Amino acid sequence: MVMNEQLNEEKVFKDPVHRYIHVRDQLIWELIGTKEFQRLRRIRQLGTTYLTFHGAEHSRFSHSLGVYEIVRRIIDIFQDRPAWNNKDRLLSLCAALLHDVGHGPFSHSFEKVFHLDHEDFTRGIILGDTEINLILRKMGNDFPKKVADVIAKTSDNKLVVSLISSQIDADRMDYLLRDAYFTGVSYGQFDIERILRVMRPREDQVVIKQSGMHAVEDYIMSRYQMYWQIYFHPVTRSAEVILTKILHRAKHLKESGYQFKLQPVHFYSLFAGNVTLTDYLKLDEAVVLYYFQIWQEEEDAILQDLCRRFMNRNLFKYVEFNPNLQMNEWRELYETFKEAGIDPDYYLVVDSSSDLPYDFYRPGEEGERLPIHLLKPSGELRELSRESEVVEAISGKKRTDHKLYYPKDLINDLTKNRDAKEKIKQILND
Amino acid sequence: MVMNEQLNEEKVFKDPVHRYIHVRDQLIWELIGTKEFQRLRRIRQLGTTYLTFHGAEHSRFSHSLGVYEIVRRIIDIFQDRPAWNNKDRLLSLCAALLHDVGHGPFSHSFEKVFHLDHEDFTRGIILGDTEINLILRKMGNDFPKKVADVIAKTSDNKLVVSLISSQIDADRMDYLLRDAYFTGVSYGQFDIERILRVMRPREDQVVIKQSGMHAVEDYIMSRYQMYWQIYFHPVTRSAEVILTKILHRAKHLKESGYQFKLQPVHFYSLFAGNVTLTDYLKLDEAVVLYYFQIWQEEEDAILQDLCRRFMNRNLFKYVEFNPNLQMNEWRELYETFKEAGIDPDYYLVVDSSSDLPYDFYRPGEEGERLPIHLLKPSGELRELSRESEVVEAISGKKRTDHKLYYPKDLINDLTKNRDAKEKIKQILND
Amino acid sequence: MVMNEQLNEEKVFKDPVHRYIHVRDQLIWELIGTKEFQRLRRIRQLGTTYLTFHGAEHSRFSHSLGVYEIVRRIIDIFQDRPAWNNKDRLLSLCAALLHDVGHGPFSHSFEKVFHLDHEDFTRGIILGDTEINLILRKMGNDFPKKVADVIAKTSDNKLVVSLISSQIDADRMDYLLRDAYFTGVSYGQFDIERILRVMRPREDQVVIKQSGMHAVEDYIMSRYQMYWQIYFHPVTRSAEVILTKILHRAKHLKESGYQFKLQPVHFYSLFAGNVTLTDYLKLDEAVVLYYFQIWQEEEDAILQDLCRRFMNRNLFKYVEFNPNLQMNEWRELYETFKEAGIDPDYYLVVDSSSDLPYDFYRPGEEGERLPIHLLKPSGELRELSRESEVVEAISGKKRTDHKLYYPKDLINDLTKNRDAKEKIKQILND
Amino acid sequence: MVMNEQLNEEKVFKDPVHRYIHVRDQLIWELIGTKEFQRLRRIRQLGTTYLTFHGAEHSRFSHSLGVYEIVRRIIDIFQDRPAWNNKDRLLSLCAALLHDVGHGPFSHSFEKVFHLDHEDFTRGIILGDTEINLILRKMGNDFPKKVADVIAKTSDNKLVVSLISSQIDADRMDYLLRDAYFTGVSYGQFDIERILRVMRPREDQVVIKQSGMHAVEDYIMSRYQMYWQIYFHPVTRSAEVILTKILHRAKHLKESGYQFKLQPVHFYSLFAGNVTLTDYLKLDEAVVLYYFQIWQEEEDAILQDLCRRFMNRNLFKYVEFNPNLQMNEWRELYETFKEAGIDPDYYLVVDSSSDLPYDFYRPGEEGERLPIHLLKPSGELRELSRESEVVEAISGKKRTDHKLYYPKDLINDLTKNRDAKEKIKQILND
Repeated sequence: MVMNEQLNEEKVFKDPVHRYIHVRDQLIWELIGTKEFQRLRRIRQLGTTYLTFHGAEHSRFSHSLGVYEIVRRIIDIFQDRPAWNNKDRLLSLCAALLHDVGHGPFSHSFEKVFHLDHEDFTRGIILGDTEINLILRKMGNDFPKKVADVIAKTSDNKLVVSLISSQIDADRMDYLLRDAYFTGVSYGQFDIERILRVMRPREDQVVIKQSGMHAVEDYIMSRYQMYWQIYFHPVTRSAEVILTKILHRAKHLKESGYQFKLQPVHFYSLFAGNVTLTDYLKLDEAVVLYYFQIWQEEEDAILQDLCRRFMNRNLFKYVEFNPNLQMNEWRELYETFKEAGIDPDYYLVVDSSSDLPYDFYRPGEEGERLPIHLLKPSGELRELSRESEVVEAISGKKRTDHKLYYPKDLINDLTKNRDAKEKIKQILND
Repeated sequence: MVMNEQLNEEKVFKDPVHRYIHVRDQLIWELIGTKEFQRLRRIRQLGTTYLTFHGAEHSRFSHSLGVYEIVRRIIDIFQDRPAWNNKDRLLSLCAALLHDVGHGPFSHSFEKVFHLDHEDFTRGIILGDTEINLILRKMGNDFPKKVADVIAKTSDNKLVVSLISSQIDADRMDYLLRDAYFTGVSYGQFDIERILRVMRPREDQVVIKQSGMHAVEDYIMSRYQMYWQIYFHPVTRSAEVILTKILHRAKHLKESGYQFKLQPVHFYSLFAGNVTLTDYLKLDEAVVLYYFQIWQEEEDAILQDLCRRFMNRNLFKYVEFNPNLQMNEWRELYETFKEAGIDPDYYLVVDSSSDLPYDFYRPGEEGERLPIHLLKPSGELRELSRESEVVEAISGKKRTDHKLYYPKDLINDLTKNRDAKEKIKQILND
Repeated sequence: MVMNEQLNEEKVFKDPVHRYIHVRDQLIWELIGTKEFQRLRRIRQLGTTYLTFHGAEHSRFSHSLGVYEIVRRIIDIFQDRPAWNNKDRLLSLCAALLHDVGHGPFSHSFEKVFHLDHEDFTRGIILGDTEINLILRKMGNDFPKKVADVIAKTSDNKLVVSLISSQIDADRMDYLLRDAYFTGVSYGQFDIERILRVMRPREDQVVIKQSGMHAVEDYIMSRYQMYWQIYFHPVTRSAEVILTKILHRAKHLKESGYQFKLQPVHFYSLFAGNVTLTDYLKLDEAVVLYYFQIWQEEEDAILQDLCRRFMNRNLFKYVEFNPNLQMNEWRELYETFKEAGIDPDYYLVVDSSSDLPYDFYRPGEEGERLPIHLLKPSGELRELSRESEVVEAISGKKRTDHKLYYPKDLINDLTKNRDAKEKIKQILND
Repeated sequence: MVMNEQLNEEKVFKDPVHRYIHVRDQLIWELIGTKEFQRLRRIRQLGTTYLTFHGAEHSRFSHSLGVYEIVRRIIDIFQDRPAWNNKDRLLSLCAALLHDVGHGPFSHSFEKVFHLDHEDFTRGIILGDTEINLILRKMGNDFPKKVADVIAKTSDNKLVVSLISSQIDADRMDYLLRDAYFTGVSYGQFDIERILRVMRPREDQVVIKQSGMHAVEDYIMSRYQMYWQIYFHPVTRSAEVILTKILHRAKHLKESGYQFKLQPVHFYSLFAGNVTLTDYLKLDEAVVLYYFQIWQEEEDAILQDLCRRFMNRNLFKYVEFNPNLQMNEWRELYETFKEAGIDPDYYLVVDSSSDLPYDFYRPGEEGERLPIHLLKPSGELRELSRESEVVEAISGKKRTDHKLYYPKDLINDLTKNRDAKEKIKQILND
């Protein structure tokens, strides 16, 4: 029979966001100790954001513990409610702890350039030949698959899924609080204790007591603010643009037969599009930064320059620029960069950000998240945006922010080609 | 003539500890942008502490900005006091910003194993062929030396020196607050605003108004608590012990002609004891962790094992052990380890910690720090420990904490050599 | 010649919201010491709110210091900007400090019942025969009037007026932060340091740099949340309803020739509608609570009962009730209360709350507040709600919340008149 | 049979210190609603401290809820430990909630002048004819006595007593945190969550796991700092000196047959030394302040002056003065005051403060508090000061601070008696 062992003595981690993270289950303790989970210490939660907000140096390790802790507290509150089945406890805790375990370094850029999906790797780590899989199987051979299904949102257990992925799940609550804490901004704060207290389990989802509506509004507004102030910050995106271009360039060079001084062995399978789990688990930010440092001395001028920019934080500047509306300017800029000898494929980049601060349910759409439902005193459920004017106001509005990134220093240095310099500056109104 | 340019518009960095860090001087702005200063982003403030307190992932970059900001605020307060010469403003700010610029990755261990001193490198970076030197020289060719002298405490300008290095300097105030913030403990907090308000410049040092004595007591107690709870934490020291042994092993292997799969080129000059500034500046934590990851696959069993332990946080356990008092046990343990085939030079390590929470002045001693002086209403100065019972109680007492570190898992696995296992467990009372 | 004397040494007040409140001007120091200003210690900032949020026991004294401190910080930032005239410094500080000096105990209720306006008393205290007036006149005989005009918004100095009264003035910023701190809710927090940094003086108002828009949005949302969660809390309003009815009853009794055991001498001129400044200044919450305590033993059953309810926090219960839509129910309830011997004029009360979380400018309207203007990089000004979707969503919408208050305990006790009891419970759906 | 009813739905109070205060027991809910407990809203926690730290306006009501909440959390942690008997749960909660219910306005001064002891009234309220007694008796007729005995420390249930009164009890933990929060100082903070986690119930007391020693040291140091910075602040004591002298004067006047304009009926039994419980319960700060306001217009010059001083915060100044060592100066001052027509019995006051920041156990002494015991891993108990150098340093040292209070303004106004003025100023070195 499968048994959930308890630790002799509760273990705690000191955590600046939740004060303490409490572990009572042997299984959780062992999962934290695996090398796949420890690897998350070497992957920053917010990618290049530390180049804008210097405090944002925290890792996915601390976020993963935080999500676990929030789910643990929710379950403590749910414990005696009929809709909650305590058999799901460990499943929920494992899914919370492991939901991000497949993330790699600078996920956003790597996934875009190499067409990866960290969710595939999360699944791979949980189901594959790993320390994590070995430990999960102590709860039964089908337990890893159950955990993976919850994380993938394909599980039948909709209630448990909604703890981890919905419009107001433990994942989002932890990252808002945590990212606010480490960047030092006040926007991400909301009354999580109050929200936990008004959560109620239903058969297929977690709902929120009507009396907690204002606390949820506050949480939604925090998200809205964090998106625009932190997650989409144009300087962070500038660093990401450069990082993406470095990866593109290195891939291109390899494919064109360029001889690297240091063979980028860690990147081979990424370039070739056939990454194995073993390869992937060797990647972390230290490895990436190591290559970037070495590549600062490569002969290829573009790779060298981009790596130096990234390492020394000599980023691209930006202007508002909407390529859909400014097609002519775009073409002209592109050509002028070429003329001036600055490769526009690497040095002229449009980046667009968008967010959906609160999505109501749209059946059939991909990537949909469960909307937030309020539980009225009568027992009736109402979708949040129908009750809250503030949320309604920002619901479902897709806002896109287009920026054009370019190396202002190089343009300023165009002393031999004054015409190009003038033309560029004029178009960019800079 | 030398001019201190002001920025058109003040720049700010969001900082979780000081809320904002304000930069008004072109010179400071440019120093922050140098590659030598940006390198501090890749060196953690607290070395291996993040393996004990997962929030402690902050870098020396953020600490350096913090020390700068505190000095900036002190000068704002000193501005109109006769003992303060505003000509020293930029000198103080530069020294504050750059005081740690020579730190390398995991300084403590590297310095011990390779007999380095980060202060030499700080001096080297400020006076050598670097971007920092180039920028400092805008203030005059002797300006870099002035800055270096303040940091080295050899400057004649004792007042400025005391801002950066004394028993209550900007360096210590920032790191206590910052390390407390990121680890999440409450001990490091004290009322810095109050302390800044009661600081008074004297010709040769900063003194504290008598009315601020209790705030200073609180600061001293914070230091005391942070030392015992954070800085000397036995788990952090366990990781450091392993790291140190990795460095020793790699050096030993190189010296014995071992063929590494990946040539440790970044370490050659360290091993040989002839590190240049250029070599040194290439070192950061990413580079170190890269090697450790690669070395997990090395053929040498000891190097491989220690690197896996470090990367996957499979640390040594510890017991209280004073080798001075327990020489026989030590010898017996050492021999038994050998017998059991576990190399005691790598797997049986005594680490001793000590602190001096508050030192009063001891003339002639090396490394002395200026004691704290209270300014009585009468104008008389009194050394703090003569006025404060609490400080007196903990003054000058050297407390040493000895721990013996060893791989408990390996001992438990000694199934073939039960006698050794029993003996070891008995001696360690484990 | 008029001189603004500086204190020998800056004085500070420890303040939980702003850390310290700094006073450098002799004039400000003396104003704080006047008996009219000290009286604010005996008047709570949030009236009956402490009966709902027990932490809300802070006084108008601390709020007034807080508003002063915010204006002091704004002026520090404005100091070198051409649009700011430093001659207005002391005028601004005095207006900030004294803007609420005319408040009496439980202002809201007293003003409603006795048709008073605390703004008249503020003016009276500044211009009348008071310690405050005496001190202000040290700056010139017309100085008190200048201060009063700024507070009354009739001053020509629109810029100074906007520091104290606009949609984003020092008054509102302090009370949101302070009320949030003392009640313990997290909603009222916003990044005041950031807002102060993006404020810019213009000839006729303070404007906000466009780059600070999100911080201002956050402030507006804080206001919105504080209104609905704190200021309009139905339990607070229940206590206010009772307090109002006590005052009505006492006035009625006096007018009908009732003989009080203790003559309510402090209320005579209030009842008669001819309050002098001297009378008014004798009123504070201690006096009011003293009478309420004594009146618990009055013979008049209604006065006795209402006072006991207030003192012992035995408040009225409430249901949603809109008298405009439920006229028939209202009439029926009113009659049934009468039948049951419960005087509906005192025991059946509708209270309506409304707020305008953010008003844009509406010319010609009374009580208008200056809207918030954003300063674009081009120098153009744009009204906030035209730039911010979130603010636009909640702008100018008047939301009213109607509640019916009644003594549920008395209804439950209607054992002799079961019909009335049933009817009332049915109408109230209770 | 006696039943402990649970509320249908948990009630919460928003609390700035503990975030939320949770009530699940019908009994606790009803106790909070009694008029005797609600009266605590009208008595400030820190007496005259608000005249020094303007934030310190919080009441004993909020403190009492806080102590209750801490005990509730301790019991939650103790629940499954064998040494804890859950039958004591409600007894502990009631004792925590009611431990201060006998406090009157400005207790310290009233008790001194009128020879009262608030502990007698606490007992009286719990055992007498009160709403509180009525409710407690629902748990059995002997339950009130049990609660009173715990508070009086005469109960046999030493473990429960130690929750409320020991060197590290819920009372002290709450007031340190709360007083620090409301005054705004940082000194009172310590890691209460950690301390609660290392508490262990023993048959006759709560002990602390050895591993929590540093957290306890930090708590002891907080106490030490709060005593010297807040509780013994000389300005607070100045207000208390005046308050005490007002009470003395009023008593003296009454006894000498003086005709008050307003008969001080609330004080009659205090003056006569025969206060009944009913009289006592009518006293609160509003009543006291009401009289003080009225007495500002009394004919007796001393009573009038002292009341004006108190109401308008025109306090006495102070100098260091030890009457034991300065007997001659004292006598001379006393005589000179007399000569100058300033009654020294009211205007020349020595006040002495002392604290015992941490007392170790002294058998047989009255008022002793249980010392703190550390629980070693071996199961052995060790008294804290034997393990902690810091605590040892401040243990049992009685420090007394003597100050002489006098009306500096009156002395300065002695224009007709220059000799007296000179002599006084000379002796006071002022």
